[in-house]
Amino acid sequence: MNTFGSNFRFTSFGESHGVAVGGVVDGCPAGLCVDFDMIDRDLARRRGDGLSGTTARKEADKVEWLSGLLDGLTLGTPIAFAIKNGDARSGDYENLRDCFRPSHADYTYQQRYGIRDYRGGGRASGRETAARVVAGCIAKQLLHQRGISIKAEAVVGGERADETSGGVVSCVIEGVPSGVGNPIFGRVNAMLASAMLSIPSAVGFEIGEGFASARMTGREYADAWNEPSGNTPLTATNHCGGVQGGITNGMPIVFSVAFHPVVTHTGATECLTADGTLREVDVKGRHDRCHVLRCPVIVEAMAAMVIADLILKG
Amino acid sequence: MNTFGSNFRFTSFGESHGVAVGGVVDGCPAGLCVDFDMIDRDLARRRGDGLSGTTARKEADKVEWLSGLLDGLTLGTPIAFAIKNGDARSGDYENLRDCFRPSHADYTYQQRYGIRDYRGGGRASGRETAARVVAGCIAKQLLHQRGISIKAEAVVGGERADETSGGVVSCVIEGVPSGVGNPIFGRVNAMLASAMLSIPSAVGFEIGEGFASARMTGREYADAWNEPSGNTPLTATNHCGGVQGGITNGMPIVFSVAFHPVVTHTGATECLTADGTLREVDVKGRHDRCHVLRCPVIVEAMAAMVIADLILKG
Amino acid sequence: MNTFGSNFRFTSFGESHGVAVGGVVDGCPAGLCVDFDMIDRDLARRRGDGLSGTTARKEADKVEWLSGLLDGLTLGTPIAFAIKNGDARSGDYENLRDCFRPSHADYTYQQRYGIRDYRGGGRASGRETAARVVAGCIAKQLLHQRGISIKAEAVVGGERADETSGGVVSCVIEGVPSGVGNPIFGRVNAMLASAMLSIPSAVGFEIGEGFASARMTGREYADAWNEPSGNTPLTATNHCGGVQGGITNGMPIVFSVAFHPVVTHTGATECLTADGTLREVDVKGRHDRCHVLRCPVIVEAMAAMVIADLILKG
Amino acid sequence: MNTFGSNFRFTSFGESHGVAVGGVVDGCPAGLCVDFDMIDRDLARRRGDGLSGTTARKEADKVEWLSGLLDGLTLGTPIAFAIKNGDARSGDYENLRDCFRPSHADYTYQQRYGIRDYRGGGRASGRETAARVVAGCIAKQLLHQRGISIKAEAVVGGERADETSGGVVSCVIEGVPSGVGNPIFGRVNAMLASAMLSIPSAVGFEIGEGFASARMTGREYADAWNEPSGNTPLTATNHCGGVQGGITNGMPIVFSVAFHPVVTHTGATECLTADGTLREVDVKGRHDRCHVLRCPVIVEAMAAMVIADLILKG
Repeated sequence: MNTFGSNFRFTSFGESHGVAVGGVVDGCPAGLCVDFDMIDRDLARRRGDGLSGTTARKEADKVEWLSGLLDGLTLGTPIAFAIKNGDARSGDYENLRDCFRPSHADYTYQQRYGIRDYRGGGRASGRETAARVVAGCIAKQLLHQRGISIKAEAVVGGERADETSGGVVSCVIEGVPSGVGNPIFGRVNAMLASAMLSIPSAVGFEIGEGFASARMTGREYADAWNEPSGNTPLTATNHCGGVQGGITNGMPIVFSVAFHPVVTHTGATECLTADGTLREVDVKGRHDRCHVLRCPVIVEAMAAMVIADLILKG
Repeated sequence: MNTFGSNFRFTSFGESHGVAVGGVVDGCPAGLCVDFDMIDRDLARRRGDGLSGTTARKEADKVEWLSGLLDGLTLGTPIAFAIKNGDARSGDYENLRDCFRPSHADYTYQQRYGIRDYRGGGRASGRETAARVVAGCIAKQLLHQRGISIKAEAVVGGERADETSGGVVSCVIEGVPSGVGNPIFGRVNAMLASAMLSIPSAVGFEIGEGFASARMTGREYADAWNEPSGNTPLTATNHCGGVQGGITNGMPIVFSVAFHPVVTHTGATECLTADGTLREVDVKGRHDRCHVLRCPVIVEAMAAMVIADLILKG
Repeated sequence: MNTFGSNFRFTSFGESHGVAVGGVVDGCPAGLCVDFDMIDRDLARRRGDGLSGTTARKEADKVEWLSGLLDGLTLGTPIAFAIKNGDARSGDYENLRDCFRPSHADYTYQQRYGIRDYRGGGRASGRETAARVVAGCIAKQLLHQRGISIKAEAVVGGERADETSGGVVSCVIEGVPSGVGNPIFGRVNAMLASAMLSIPSAVGFEIGEGFASARMTGREYADAWNEPSGNTPLTATNHCGGVQGGITNGMPIVFSVAFHPVVTHTGATECLTADGTLREVDVKGRHDRCHVLRCPVIVEAMAAMVIADLILKG
Repeated sequence: MNTFGSNFRFTSFGESHGVAVGGVVDGCPAGLCVDFDMIDRDLARRRGDGLSGTTARKEADKVEWLSGLLDGLTLGTPIAFAIKNGDARSGDYENLRDCFRPSHADYTYQQRYGIRDYRGGGRASGRETAARVVAGCIAKQLLHQRGISIKAEAVVGGERADETSGGVVSCVIEGVPSGVGNPIFGRVNAMLASAMLSIPSAVGFEIGEGFASARMTGREYADAWNEPSGNTPLTATNHCGGVQGGITNGMPIVFSVAFHPVVTHTGATECLTADGTLREVDVKGRHDRCHVLRCPVIVEAMAAMVIADLILKG
């Protein structure tokens, strides 16, 4: 539901215009010296500081640490944190109380719960990902200690900030040893896919050649072994993206995530109402034009939590 | 690891050339009258009966039911079953004992466990999916009772049986009411992605427009509401594939899965050996040329388990 | 680890002298109107307000609600809350930094994590139970709506506040319908046992006749059926405590929990040190003489979470 | 539900008079050389071979291994096994089809599922514990490799085989290092309590002094440190039973389990019927007079699974 992972376990909470978003990280090993500046930098990447076309909402994103730390070191106990919601203009959303915007979670949340926080998307808002970035950055730091690095970037999308579009984020994880992962339902690729599709607006995942491999032959797709020697990579190519049978082979893990475009627009929007009619509503609030540029750090955060979860399984 | 789902829970076991593959279904409601013929038909679809280019291995796939049934009705207790492995020519694999074929799970299993069943792919073989088909068919029957149907087909791949290629399987789930799913990490799309990427050789997942949406604008992507009336679908288009904010909106759930081509070929193959050298090995065994035609029933099985799991959550 | 339950799921966080204790309740149905006064009253019961012999530490126990609520109604999303630690005299514990008191968790936490918050017991302190009382009270309110009540009281212990002793808390749950629970590993009694033994200083659990039944014969133990009629209880006796085969029979659920005495004393205490010697330490801090009187509300909280978890399973 | 543990995970299946009882062990490390004779010996202990007063049902308890093994070594993949039910006289139970015996799970299963296997107790029968003994014996072997031993015996009950009574089984686990366990909800004592109360007819659990500690003072209960030296135990006494704050301290883990007496008697028994009347039924079948003598090996099996689960957590 709102918990991700089993060994490195993250529980997320918070609504966009509630008191706070935040989370609890359970299972982080004791003795990690947390780099709080790195967390702040990742939060700045998520906010899109300096990017045009990203949200006008300005949040300080000050992380309040509630537990699990002593003198900056993790205790092995749950690390709880909260980020207060500051710049929330809830009044902007009053006319959405009984209206469901098209292609939003307004309608589905109402159907699921019979009630929803209609202000700024509530729980479905991208604001929730701030908590993931914090937890994911702790996971990254844990992985850095073990020589594992994660780097994501937008490879499609964001070219023109004046027009909303979706995009694709590509991610490479380096340094994961071979033999990590669990076959069948705990495959690395299955866990990554689940993690990525849990990001708001994510609609696709592929590993290695992904959808392109559908038109390749077996001979084209096969990754031939290199002659083993000290520095030579295991295989000559990496079509499989570093995972075979759900388990890492030691090559870089390479995957991509597709995001649909932002569908929120300011202005007149035809909405469905709670009483089953259509109504034109003047939608306010502050929305991204292109959110894909803000997504790489979220992709990294989720990827880091997946790998930390697997590595800690022992 | 080898268990999928939380409410409708399936535990899979078995190696390709061991005694049996099989599984345990836990959480299936009591009182379901099991249609054993439908299970046999789905197993025949998985075997690819009548298709050229699929495996020469001929298995009777006789399901032995071990528990959880009384007079053909489910008891609400665990349903265990086993499918004995009959037509296994294990001797074919003797020369692979210490050799790792390229682009197989041979090497990664060895790295993960320090031991592996080298005969016919062992646990990593597609043979394990027979157990999924059985469990998934029980889930399908549960869903049929509730008016939910699932249909998958190969949309790319399998055109020419004389040449190995990957493919894409597209799947539509109809009849799922709105309000099903759990936001954040239990999103319908995240669960489907995880389920699909757990299928051997699956390398990609997309829902609705998927990767194509990366180049769409928000206005193109948005699904406008239809004027509500008795028989009219909720929205004029279904770019989102039936899921918004991770929760169903009542429209058909539409997704696709990409599969890489079969990389096993009979004949001389350069393998990595356990002592770190390359060696040409004469690979025997019986392999698919095009396995994608056998995948739709597996996609359906996994999809059925996901939806059953969600529906039973209440 | 720090999460309890699967449908009504509670994640606990916090150290005794850290910033806060608190938790996240996930899975609470939407639309519950929270009675905050009832929560405050339960917190007062846990503090032992008005009891002699209980802790001198005075906490306001003001609950800060962070998410999951709108206008006092639950949203179905995670309910996060924090209770700041106010009256913490951390300096009292400075001389315990490298010392392990006898019969405390000081030594075992150090062995487990290689680091610990030595102030006031850290994570192992009874302070953590404040968070359980909050979450448990939400569960109680959910159950009240369904006609289920839970009442615990100390039946042994607390008679003389001038002398430290352990005790026994007895609990009765009324109104649970028959047919609740899951056989084998999800038995109601197994879940209650696990919940109760998770309370600090709990060392025993019994249901119905419990340990006394070891000396009863089958004829003495059997609960004869009453002649069925409108108001007659199902059985003439209730030796089984309302659970048979792990599933409720509709009779009151009756169980007891044993607590060992408080082993913390102010004054000279022989401690083990980190360098492996014994040392007499002047232990300060503020401790209960008899904590058993404060335990019933915690037993109720944990019982409520167990029953809510089972009821929500559907 | 029917799965126990998270790292060493056991899924149980089977009804007393169905085709088989059995299970799947998932998470057992690869490379363990299984001692099948030891498993047979434990199954013989469970059958009570040679004891008077135990069941007249004679089962061969031949274990059929279905997966997860190669040449007697574990592969790290799921180990599935089945034990066929041979000596089942199902006809004996025909008159119980619509009747619920007192103090059995007949009524509660019917309420829970609306259907039940009425033959020999069905899923609720003690027969299911044969599967636990197999899985638990694998866990024991894993622990033996790590120097951990488990020994249980009946300390109350079974003195006179001519009269049915309940009993108490006491268990000692030696060799578990300090620092094993997880605080709060994953406490060793909470896990043991849950495991023990999952055994049919178990109604109580206590660790260390348990219920007796309720009347002890803090000074009596405290376990003083011994002066550290090579062979000296950590503490002079072991009132806490080897666990503090939910984590082991390296002393023996000592606990007891109470069992209620067998309530099944052959002969005229007043039963509740499905149509809500009382009826005298001639109960047949073969039942223990004193089952407590058969319980120690089951207690050991469950304890072994708990400790294996904790040790494998890493």
